[in-house]
Amino acid sequence: MANDLVITPTELLDHWQGHRRVTRRMIEAFPENELFTYSSGGMRSFGAMATELLRMAVPIARGVATGQWTDDHVEPRTKEELLESWDRSTADLDRVWKTIPEHRFQEVDTAFGQWKGTGTWMILYAIDNEIHHRGQGYVYLRSLGLEPPAFYDRS
Amino acid sequence: MANDLVITPTELLDHWQGHRRVTRRMIEAFPENELFTYSSGGMRSFGAMATELLRMAVPIARGVATGQWTDDHVEPRTKEELLESWDRSTADLDRVWKTIPEHRFQEVDTAFGQWKGTGTWMILYAIDNEIHHRGQGYVYLRSLGLEPPAFYDRS
Repeated sequence: MANDLVITPTELLDHWQGHRRVTRRMIEAFPENELFTYSSGGMRSFGAMATELLRMAVPIARGVATGQWTDDHVEPRTKEELLESWDRSTADLDRVWKTIPEHRFQEVDTAFGQWKGTGTWMILYAIDNEIHHRGQGYVYLRSLGLEPPAFYDRS
Repeated sequence: MANDLVITPTELLDHWQGHRRVTRRMIEAFPENELFTYSSGGMRSFGAMATELLRMAVPIARGVATGQWTDDHVEPRTKEELLESWDRSTADLDRVWKTIPEHRFQEVDTAFGQWKGTGTWMILYAIDNEIHHRGQGYVYLRSLGLEPPAFYDRS
Protein backbone atom coordinates (compact mmCIF):
# COMPACT_ATOMS: atom_id res chain seq x y z
CA MET A 1 0.00 0.00 0.00
CA ALA A 2 1.31 3.44 -0.86
CA ASN A 3 2.35 5.76 1.96
CA ASP A 4 -0.58 8.12 1.75
CA LEU A 5 -0.58 11.76 2.84
CA VAL A 6 -4.07 12.32 4.27
CA ILE A 7 -5.52 8.82 4.70
CA THR A 8 -4.65 5.37 3.38
CA PRO A 9 -7.22 3.05 1.78
CA THR A 10 -6.98 0.77 4.82
CA GLU A 11 -7.56 3.66 7.21
CA LEU A 12 -10.60 4.76 5.18
CA LEU A 13 -12.06 1.25 5.38
CA ASP A 14 -11.40 1.13 9.15
CA HIS A 15 -13.12 4.51 9.48
CA TRP A 16 -16.18 3.22 7.59
CA GLN A 17 -16.35 -0.08 9.44
CA GLY A 18 -16.05 1.84 12.73
CA HIS A 19 -19.14 3.83 11.77
CA ARG A 20 -20.87 0.64 10.64
CA ARG A 21 -20.26 -0.86 14.09
CA VAL A 22 -22.03 2.13 15.67
CA THR A 23 -24.91 1.76 13.19
CA ARG A 24 -25.18 -1.94 14.05
CA ARG A 25 -25.48 -1.02 17.73
CA MET A 26 -28.22 1.45 16.76
CA ILE A 27 -30.18 -1.32 15.02
CA GLU A 28 -29.74 -3.48 18.12
CA ALA A 29 -30.93 -0.64 20.38
CA PHE A 30 -34.31 -0.36 18.61
CA PRO A 31 -37.16 -2.44 19.98
CA GLU A 32 -38.25 -5.04 17.40
CA ASN A 33 -41.72 -3.54 17.07
CA GLU A 34 -40.46 0.03 16.51
CA LEU A 35 -37.57 -0.62 14.12
CA PHE A 36 -39.66 -0.71 10.95
CA THR A 37 -42.63 1.31 12.17
CA TYR A 38 -41.58 4.23 14.36
CA SER A 39 -40.71 7.56 12.77
CA SER A 40 -40.94 11.27 13.32
CA GLY A 41 -41.84 14.24 11.10
CA GLY A 42 -43.23 12.00 8.34
CA MET A 43 -39.83 10.45 7.71
CA ARG A 44 -38.93 6.79 7.14
CA SER A 45 -38.40 4.24 9.91
CA PHE A 46 -34.83 3.57 11.01
CA GLY A 47 -35.20 0.03 9.63
CA ALA A 48 -35.96 1.48 6.18
CA MET A 49 -32.99 3.83 6.43
CA ALA A 50 -30.64 1.01 7.51
CA THR A 51 -31.88 -1.04 4.54
CA GLU A 52 -30.91 1.86 2.24
CA LEU A 53 -27.44 1.90 3.83
CA LEU A 54 -27.11 -1.85 3.16
CA ARG A 55 -28.04 -1.29 -0.47
CA MET A 56 -25.35 1.36 -0.83
CA ALA A 57 -22.28 0.06 1.02
CA VAL A 58 -21.16 -3.06 -0.85
CA PRO A 59 -22.58 -1.96 -4.26
CA ILE A 60 -20.57 1.28 -4.03
CA ALA A 61 -17.36 -0.46 -2.94
CA ARG A 62 -17.87 -3.01 -5.74
CA GLY A 63 -18.49 -0.23 -8.26
CA VAL A 64 -15.32 1.56 -7.22
CA ALA A 65 -13.43 -1.73 -7.43
CA THR A 66 -14.77 -2.90 -10.80
CA GLY A 67 -16.56 -0.06 -12.62
CA GLN A 68 -19.69 -2.26 -12.56
CA TRP A 69 -22.55 -0.53 -10.71
CA THR A 70 -25.10 -3.16 -9.76
CA ASP A 71 -27.74 -3.21 -7.04
CA ASP A 72 -28.05 -5.63 -4.16
CA HIS A 73 -31.70 -6.49 -3.58
CA VAL A 74 -31.77 -6.93 0.17
CA GLU A 75 -35.15 -6.57 1.86
CA PRO A 76 -34.85 -7.48 5.55
CA ARG A 77 -38.23 -7.56 7.30
CA THR A 78 -37.24 -8.22 10.90
CA LYS A 79 -34.53 -6.99 13.23
CA GLU A 80 -32.86 -10.40 13.05
CA GLU A 81 -32.84 -10.38 9.24
CA LEU A 82 -31.49 -6.82 9.22
CA LEU A 83 -28.66 -7.71 11.60
CA GLU A 84 -27.82 -10.83 9.55
CA SER A 85 -27.73 -8.77 6.34
CA TRP A 86 -25.61 -6.16 8.12
CA ASP A 87 -23.04 -8.75 9.22
CA ARG A 88 -22.89 -10.30 5.76
CA SER A 89 -22.37 -6.83 4.30
CA THR A 90 -19.56 -6.14 6.81
CA ALA A 91 -17.67 -9.24 5.66
CA ASP A 92 -18.40 -8.51 1.98
CA LEU A 93 -17.16 -4.94 2.34
CA ASP A 94 -13.85 -6.13 3.79
CA ARG A 95 -13.49 -8.62 0.95
CA VAL A 96 -14.43 -6.23 -1.87
CA TRP A 97 -12.31 -3.40 -0.46
CA LYS A 98 -9.11 -5.45 -0.89
CA THR A 99 -9.83 -5.65 -4.63
CA ILE A 100 -10.05 -1.86 -5.23
CA PRO A 101 -7.19 -0.88 -7.56
CA GLU A 102 -5.34 2.11 -6.10
CA HIS A 103 -5.98 4.32 -9.13
CA ARG A 104 -9.76 3.97 -8.70
CA PHE A 105 -9.90 6.21 -5.62
CA GLN A 106 -9.11 9.31 -7.65
CA GLU A 107 -10.59 8.12 -10.96
CA VAL A 108 -13.85 9.78 -11.98
CA ASP A 109 -16.68 7.38 -12.81
CA THR A 110 -20.48 7.62 -13.08
CA ALA A 111 -21.99 5.55 -10.32
CA PHE A 112 -25.19 3.66 -11.16
CA GLY A 113 -25.39 5.65 -14.41
CA GLN A 114 -26.22 8.81 -12.47
CA TRP A 115 -23.66 10.22 -10.04
CA LYS A 116 -20.36 11.44 -11.41
CA GLY A 117 -17.38 11.70 -9.10
CA THR A 118 -14.19 10.05 -7.93
CA GLY A 119 -14.22 6.70 -6.15
CA THR A 120 -13.35 8.46 -2.90
CA TRP A 121 -16.21 10.90 -3.41
CA MET A 122 -18.70 8.01 -3.76
CA ILE A 123 -17.30 6.22 -0.72
CA LEU A 124 -17.47 9.39 1.38
CA TYR A 125 -21.05 9.89 0.17
CA ALA A 126 -21.97 6.43 1.46
CA ILE A 127 -20.30 7.07 4.84
CA ASP A 128 -21.82 10.55 5.19
CA ASN A 129 -25.28 9.28 4.25
CA GLU A 130 -24.93 6.61 6.95
CA ILE A 131 -23.95 9.17 9.61
CA HIS A 132 -26.79 11.47 8.46
CA HIS A 133 -29.52 8.84 8.76
CA ARG A 134 -28.08 7.34 11.92
CA GLY A 135 -28.21 10.82 13.48
CA GLN A 136 -31.92 10.84 12.64
CA GLY A 137 -32.23 7.44 14.31
CA TYR A 138 -30.72 8.96 17.47
CA VAL A 139 -33.67 11.36 17.67
CA TYR A 140 -36.11 8.45 17.18
CA LEU A 141 -34.46 6.44 19.97
CA ARG A 142 -34.37 9.42 22.36
CA SER A 143 -38.01 10.13 21.55
CA LEU A 144 -38.76 6.53 22.52
CA GLY A 145 -37.01 7.16 25.85
CA LEU A 146 -34.04 4.96 24.91
CA GLU A 147 -30.32 5.71 25.19
CA PRO A 148 -28.49 5.49 21.84
CA PRO A 149 -24.97 4.01 21.63
CA ALA A 150 -22.10 6.51 22.05
CA PHE A 151 -21.35 8.34 18.79
CA TYR A 152 -17.62 8.53 19.55
CA ASP A 153 -17.14 4.84 20.32
CA ARG A 154 -16.24 3.13 17.04
CA SER A 155 -14.89 -0.08 18.61
CA MET B 1 0.66 19.70 -2.93
CA ALA B 2 1.55 16.04 -3.13
CA ASN B 3 -0.32 13.80 -5.55
CA ASP B 4 -2.42 11.96 -3.01
CA LEU B 5 -3.85 8.46 -3.42
CA VAL B 6 -7.22 8.61 -1.67
CA ILE B 7 -7.87 12.32 -1.12
CA THR B 8 -5.75 15.46 -1.20
CA PRO B 9 -5.74 18.05 1.61
CA THR B 10 -7.54 20.50 -0.71
CA GLU B 11 -10.21 17.93 -1.58
CA LEU B 12 -10.74 17.20 2.12
CA LEU B 13 -11.22 20.91 2.83
CA ASP B 14 -13.66 21.20 -0.11
CA HIS B 15 -15.56 18.20 1.25
CA TRP B 16 -15.81 19.82 4.69
CA GLN B 17 -16.77 23.24 3.37
CA GLY B 18 -19.42 21.57 1.17
CA HIS B 19 -20.95 20.05 4.30
CA ARG B 20 -20.66 23.40 6.08
CA ARG B 21 -22.65 25.04 3.29
CA VAL B 22 -25.46 22.52 3.85
CA THR B 23 -25.32 23.17 7.60
CA ARG B 24 -25.51 26.91 6.98
CA ARG B 25 -28.66 26.36 4.90
CA MET B 26 -30.07 24.32 7.80
CA ILE B 27 -29.50 27.23 10.19
CA GLU B 28 -31.22 29.52 7.70
CA ALA B 29 -34.15 27.11 7.36
CA PHE B 30 -34.98 27.25 11.09
CA PRO B 31 -37.44 29.89 12.21
CA GLU B 32 -35.73 32.42 14.51
CA ASN B 33 -37.93 31.51 17.47
CA GLU B 34 -37.31 27.75 17.16
CA LEU B 35 -33.58 27.71 16.44
CA PHE B 36 -32.46 27.90 20.08
CA THR B 37 -35.58 26.50 21.71
CA TYR B 38 -37.09 23.62 19.72
CA SER B 39 -35.89 20.08 20.36
CA SER B 40 -37.07 16.52 20.47
CA GLY B 41 -36.44 13.59 22.82
CA GLY B 42 -34.85 15.81 25.48
CA MET B 43 -31.97 16.71 23.17
CA ARG B 44 -30.36 20.10 22.55
CA SER B 45 -31.71 22.74 20.17
CA PHE B 46 -30.20 22.89 16.69
CA GLY B 47 -28.77 26.32 17.58
CA ALA B 48 -26.88 24.76 20.51
CA MET B 49 -25.60 21.96 18.25
CA ALA B 50 -24.48 24.43 15.57
CA THR B 51 -22.64 26.41 18.26
CA GLU B 52 -20.78 23.22 19.22
CA LEU B 53 -19.82 22.73 15.58
CA LEU B 54 -18.46 26.30 15.46
CA ARG B 55 -16.38 25.62 18.55
CA MET B 56 -14.87 22.54 16.95
CA ALA B 57 -14.13 23.46 13.32
CA VAL B 58 -11.47 26.17 13.44
CA PRO B 59 -9.96 25.08 16.79
CA ILE B 60 -9.42 21.58 15.38
CA ALA B 61 -7.94 22.83 12.10
CA ARG B 62 -5.71 25.20 14.09
CA GLY B 63 -4.65 22.39 16.42
CA VAL B 64 -3.75 20.17 13.46
CA ALA B 65 -1.86 23.09 11.92
CA THR B 66 0.06 24.19 15.02
CA GLY B 67 -0.16 21.54 17.77
CA GLN B 68 -1.80 24.22 19.93
CA TRP B 69 -5.28 23.16 21.05
CA THR B 70 -7.17 26.23 22.17
CA ASP B 71 -10.89 26.93 22.41
CA ASP B 72 -12.87 29.60 20.60
CA HIS B 73 -15.44 31.11 22.93
CA VAL B 74 -18.26 31.84 20.54
CA GLU B 75 -21.73 32.17 22.05
CA PRO B 76 -24.20 33.31 19.36
CA ARG B 77 -27.63 34.09 20.81
CA THR B 78 -29.63 34.87 17.69
CA LYS B 79 -29.93 33.39 14.21
CA GLU B 80 -28.16 36.44 12.79
CA GLU B 81 -25.25 36.12 15.23
CA LEU B 82 -25.00 32.40 14.50
CA LEU B 83 -24.87 32.99 10.74
CA GLU B 84 -22.26 35.74 11.19
CA SER B 85 -20.11 33.46 13.34
CA TRP B 86 -20.58 30.69 10.79
CA ASP B 87 -19.37 32.88 7.92
CA ARG B 88 -16.38 34.10 9.92
CA SER B 89 -15.53 30.49 10.73
CA THR B 90 -15.79 29.54 7.03
CA ALA B 91 -13.21 32.17 6.09
CA ASP B 92 -10.99 31.29 9.08
CA LEU B 93 -11.09 27.60 8.18
CA ASP B 94 -9.90 28.33 4.63
CA ARG B 95 -7.10 30.50 6.02
CA VAL B 96 -5.95 28.09 8.73
CA TRP B 97 -6.17 25.06 6.42
CA LYS B 98 -3.48 26.49 4.12
CA THR B 99 -1.06 26.53 7.06
CA ILE B 100 -1.37 22.80 7.91
CA PRO B 101 2.02 21.18 7.30
CA GLU B 102 1.57 18.03 5.21
CA HIS B 103 3.10 15.73 7.82
CA ARG B 104 0.47 16.75 10.38
CA PHE B 105 -2.34 14.81 8.67
CA GLN B 106 -0.83 11.47 9.63
CA GLU B 107 0.96 12.64 12.79
CA VAL B 108 -0.59 11.48 16.07
CA ASP B 109 -1.33 14.25 18.57
CA THR B 110 -3.54 14.64 21.63
CA ALA B 111 -6.26 17.14 20.84
CA PHE B 112 -7.29 19.45 23.69
CA GLY B 113 -5.27 17.27 26.08
CA GLN B 114 -7.81 14.46 25.72
CA TRP B 115 -8.28 12.86 22.32
CA LYS B 116 -5.38 10.99 20.77
CA GLY B 117 -5.33 10.41 17.03
CA THR B 118 -3.93 11.58 13.74
CA GLY B 119 -4.73 15.01 12.35
CA THR B 120 -6.96 13.40 9.71
CA TRP B 121 -8.76 11.43 12.42
CA MET B 122 -9.57 14.66 14.30
CA ILE B 123 -10.71 16.43 11.13
CA LEU B 124 -12.95 13.51 10.17
CA TYR B 125 -14.35 13.51 13.70
CA ALA B 126 -15.33 17.17 13.29
CA ILE B 127 -16.96 16.52 9.90
CA ASP B 128 -18.76 13.39 11.11
CA ASN B 129 -20.01 15.15 14.24
CA GLU B 130 -21.39 17.92 12.03
CA ILE B 131 -23.24 15.45 9.77
CA HIS B 132 -24.53 13.58 12.85
CA HIS B 133 -26.02 16.64 14.53
CA ARG B 134 -27.27 18.12 11.27
CA GLY B 135 -29.14 14.84 10.64
CA GLN B 136 -30.82 15.38 14.01
CA GLY B 137 -31.71 18.91 12.90
CA TYR B 138 -33.42 17.41 9.84
CA VAL B 139 -35.83 15.57 12.13
CA TYR B 140 -36.50 18.78 14.09
CA LEU B 141 -37.24 20.71 10.87
CA ARG B 142 -39.49 17.96 9.49
CA SER B 143 -41.30 17.80 12.83
CA LEU B 144 -41.90 21.54 12.50
CA GLY B 145 -43.42 20.87 9.07
CA LEU B 146 -40.50 22.48 7.24
CA GLU B 147 -38.49 21.12 4.30
CA PRO B 148 -34.75 20.78 5.05
CA PRO B 149 -32.13 21.62 2.37
CA ALA B 150 -31.08 18.71 0.13
CA PHE B 151 -28.45 16.54 1.81
CA TYR B 152 -26.71 15.79 -1.48
CA ASP B 153 -26.37 19.40 -2.66
CA ARG B 154 -23.04 20.67 -1.36
CA SER B 155 -22.84 23.72 -3.64
